[in-house]
Amino acid sequence: MCDLIIISFFINRSNIWKKAFHFSAAMAKSKFEYVRLFEVDDRCLPNTWIVVRVDGKGFHKFSTEHGYEKPNDIKALSLMNRAATSVMEEFKDICLAYGQSDEYSFVFRKETQAYSRRSAKLSTNVCSLFTSAFVYYWNEYFPTIKPRYPPVFDGRTVLYPSNQNIRDYLSWRQADCHINNLYNTTFWALILKGGLTPTEAENKLKGTLSGDKNEILFSQFAINYNTEPEMLRKGTVLVRRKVPVALPNGGTREKSQIVQEHVDIIGDEFWNTNTHLLTLT
Amino acid sequence: MCDLIIISFFINRSNIWKKAFHFSAAMAKSKFEYVRLFEVDDRCLPNTWIVVRVDGKGFHKFSTEHGYEKPNDIKALSLMNRAATSVMEEFKDICLAYGQSDEYSFVFRKETQAYSRRSAKLSTNVCSLFTSAFVYYWNEYFPTIKPRYPPVFDGRTVLYPSNQNIRDYLSWRQADCHINNLYNTTFWALILKGGLTPTEAENKLKGTLSGDKNEILFSQFAINYNTEPEMLRKGTVLVRRKVPVALPNGGTREKSQIVQEHVDIIGDEFWNTNTHLLTLT
Amino acid sequence: MCDLIIISFFINRSNIWKKAFHFSAAMAKSKFEYVRLFEVDDRCLPNTWIVVRVDGKGFHKFSTEHGYEKPNDIKALSLMNRAATSVMEEFKDICLAYGQSDEYSFVFRKETQAYSRRSAKLSTNVCSLFTSAFVYYWNEYFPTIKPRYPPVFDGRTVLYPSNQNIRDYLSWRQADCHINNLYNTTFWALILKGGLTPTEAENKLKGTLSGDKNEILFSQFAINYNTEPEMLRKGTVLVRRKVPVALPNGGTREKSQIVQEHVDIIGDEFWNTNTHLLTLT
Amino acid sequence: MCDLIIISFFINRSNIWKKAFHFSAAMAKSKFEYVRLFEVDDRCLPNTWIVVRVDGKGFHKFSTEHGYEKPNDIKALSLMNRAATSVMEEFKDICLAYGQSDEYSFVFRKETQAYSRRSAKLSTNVCSLFTSAFVYYWNEYFPTIKPRYPPVFDGRTVLYPSNQNIRDYLSWRQADCHINNLYNTTFWALILKGGLTPTEAENKLKGTLSGDKNEILFSQFAINYNTEPEMLRKGTVLVRRKVPVALPNGGTREKSQIVQEHVDIIGDEFWNTNTHLLTLT
Repeated sequence: MCDLIIISFFINRSNIWKKAFHFSAAMAKSKFEYVRLFEVDDRCLPNTWIVVRVDGKGFHKFSTEHGYEKPNDIKALSLMNRAATSVMEEFKDICLAYGQSDEYSFVFRKETQAYSRRSAKLSTNVCSLFTSAFVYYWNEYFPTIKPRYPPVFDGRTVLYPSNQNIRDYLSWRQADCHINNLYNTTFWALILKGGLTPTEAENKLKGTLSGDKNEILFSQFAINYNTEPEMLRKGTVLVRRKVPVALPNGGTREKSQIVQEHVDIIGDEFWNTNTHLLTLT
Repeated sequence: MCDLIIISFFINRSNIWKKAFHFSAAMAKSKFEYVRLFEVDDRCLPNTWIVVRVDGKGFHKFSTEHGYEKPNDIKALSLMNRAATSVMEEFKDICLAYGQSDEYSFVFRKETQAYSRRSAKLSTNVCSLFTSAFVYYWNEYFPTIKPRYPPVFDGRTVLYPSNQNIRDYLSWRQADCHINNLYNTTFWALILKGGLTPTEAENKLKGTLSGDKNEILFSQFAINYNTEPEMLRKGTVLVRRKVPVALPNGGTREKSQIVQEHVDIIGDEFWNTNTHLLTLT
Repeated sequence: MCDLIIISFFINRSNIWKKAFHFSAAMAKSKFEYVRLFEVDDRCLPNTWIVVRVDGKGFHKFSTEHGYEKPNDIKALSLMNRAATSVMEEFKDICLAYGQSDEYSFVFRKETQAYSRRSAKLSTNVCSLFTSAFVYYWNEYFPTIKPRYPPVFDGRTVLYPSNQNIRDYLSWRQADCHINNLYNTTFWALILKGGLTPTEAENKLKGTLSGDKNEILFSQFAINYNTEPEMLRKGTVLVRRKVPVALPNGGTREKSQIVQEHVDIIGDEFWNTNTHLLTLT
Repeated sequence: MCDLIIISFFINRSNIWKKAFHFSAAMAKSKFEYVRLFEVDDRCLPNTWIVVRVDGKGFHKFSTEHGYEKPNDIKALSLMNRAATSVMEEFKDICLAYGQSDEYSFVFRKETQAYSRRSAKLSTNVCSLFTSAFVYYWNEYFPTIKPRYPPVFDGRTVLYPSNQNIRDYLSWRQADCHINNLYNTTFWALILKGGLTPTEAENKLKGTLSGDKNEILFSQFAINYNTEPEMLRKGTVLVRRKVPVALPNGGTREKSQIVQEHVDIIGDEFWNTNTHLLTLT
């Protein structure tokens, strides 16, 4: 599909090749085809980490209208993880994905040549597949609720040159998960268990630090935040792992599989035990 | 959500504002937040037509696996039109959309400020909503067939400066529709009615011109191509029209509605009778 | 010089061509040549006006250190015009240039293919030639003053889609010329003829409107601003005109020549009498 | 100068700030000022090496017309080095420059904030200053030859994410220097000492490898290429070195100075003894 524009491209730039090919306008299907030349070349800088992040559009409203449990809906998070797994199955060059709340970040290997590293191709394909899988698998997670309208995710491509930068990006998202989840857990405890109105809960939390929220949870509601499910506190990391698979003859063999882990990715431990993620393959 | 990066942006560029705000790093939620500065500003040139085109990924395979009728499946095209209508309902600044086969082009008004004209925001939102609606409404058009996997559409944003350019863009897509549909109609007639194998049909059509294909259709299969349904020959144009709506009191009022038209948009007639489309509103 | 990167480009994107060429890494002069792939394609949107503006860097200081006359130095402005003429002689696709103070704007025809419309090529070539000519011809305008250090101009490329936009761009620069020149003329009259210090002059002009400044000039210094030289009030427009040239045989022939005009380009008159400038050639 | 566009920028994107400022169009000097919004934000990816390379335009012709000695003109190369030194004096964030033939590459520190990392600002400023200094200092190196026309250099900005990439970039340029200089040395020896015509020399060298050229030089002209001046074989590296400076009291102090070195920068030795160049400062 894109041969012609490529030809046009280099013909435009090189008389040598023009002569070599005896290219003529007759090759175009119609005289309107020149409009392809208005497309821009948006290939990402080589040797740089490519992150595509998808983000739910208006999911505050969407979650309310579809009865998501507060502060967290395990089914909704699981559906997010399912959709993200579809993306990783399709794009072999995604080495790690990280999701929390209504967002998911996909990290492509520095050296990926997927879609020739074209930024819009990467963001729209990932975003479309994620959205498609979210609607496609909805019924498996919410069998009794029909979605009231088609949910939407936006997408963006961001580049990170160094290993430290890509780690800091992921730390940023996981710190965001922690901050928001601690807030939401306390906020909804005050409402659902403490009987406060949303406005009262908001006012009570204004200006509080992490320690204050932990204290409220523990003293008023006997909730030890640190024993809350890790999926909620840490979000979900998707990586490929060799998993043993049983063979018909009774033996086993190893198979690469996408697994979900709910672990800290801010500290060094995860990266020290997964050195392959940040090195060239 | 994007205040901080904006603040960073202009602080970066203007000491005056830095002093005025007493901005400090303390405003960031975490020390990792600097990674937001790696996002690029991809706003489209002002006063320029913005086209977002979505394109089915691997739809040759998808159509085969889901039993699309050949050469055209009216249900599948209608589902495309339904998904595109969802996009136009959401984005009021899309003044016209054009679809054919597994693709749809959305034309934003030159002066749109949707998403501040950010290219990736526009392409991913349109692409995600289109995909989502395609899966969401699938069942209305294919009630007996469950999709075997989540379908995917890619998206791209292209700019066109002049009215002539945007008309040529749309002409390019409609000419493509014509060329492909005439070919496919003849190709499948040779197979389904003429008993040829796909390879035999392909060989027979090699090097033929439009007139040759019209002749084959007419003489061998008594098909007058020009009386084939216009939806297949012309594709579908979506525009907003004032439509009379009945009022409870028996009167009527006008309401803006998105309507489907299967008309020529290459010639001048359509544009002469729809001058509002190419003028500033 | 740029063949290889082009080859790499399309090979990267098209297996068909890869096979056709039997391209191998051996064609590269060294194994380091891959670094060329990090260069970006920055070609400007087709069918769009391209403006390259050069701007003196630190010219307040430069003009003081080189004894420019205040408020305007005709020699310095003439040198600017000379340098700009060199640029127009080199780039045939510049249809109009406009200069004032220490800046010059060069307008390339919408359809120019100069340097394949590559943004950085255009801005750096124009900027370098302008700078080079400024130093080269310095001696013709300031024969008794040796420049104390190499003067610098920065450059930028900006795109304008419509005729109205490009006219508004030029109007913006000419309005800027008017505003600054009226201010400077009054400011320096107050100092040179009125005996005020710069601070006193600045304070006196704070908050004044155009009418106030005209009044100060007229009542205190008997200067009618409207009869000041048009080169100072309007800046300089460079255009190509057919000029009669004497032939050896006594006849004349027409020759295209770059001429300087000091006229209003905000109103319609200039454009009505120069319709060729805004139409495709 | 650029406050307004920045204001427009964030006002465009944030209603919060719009309200905070009570910004009104009245702040603009004229109604034409909106055209500033057509300028694009071209800031380079953070934490990435920025190279600006300037390249002589048409220097084959320029060198011939100005009587450059063949195969190398020491005066011309020295003038290039002088111009490059001016650039490094101005831009403190250039940690290293490398020049050969009619080109010079300037390496900005990864973390530079010069011109907010705006690509066009960096390339045009460097290119303009280099050009300006080249013309300005011409007379010191060619006192008897007046330049016949203003020489021009183009410029480009290229990003390199890793230390290996930036080293490979510099290796690419130095390998190019070696290949071209060995060729030119042999080519001109065949002409100037061997009496061949340019065409004969070209034919004789067609298909030869490095060893062949070394052999021709040695056996026919008693030239040992490896003892040719290093400035010609290696090009010139500009770096900042602490240099002892005599004090009035008889003592010395260290001062940072830009020095020229003609050394290999492909191998590890240079980088092992200059580790500060590739580490954050």
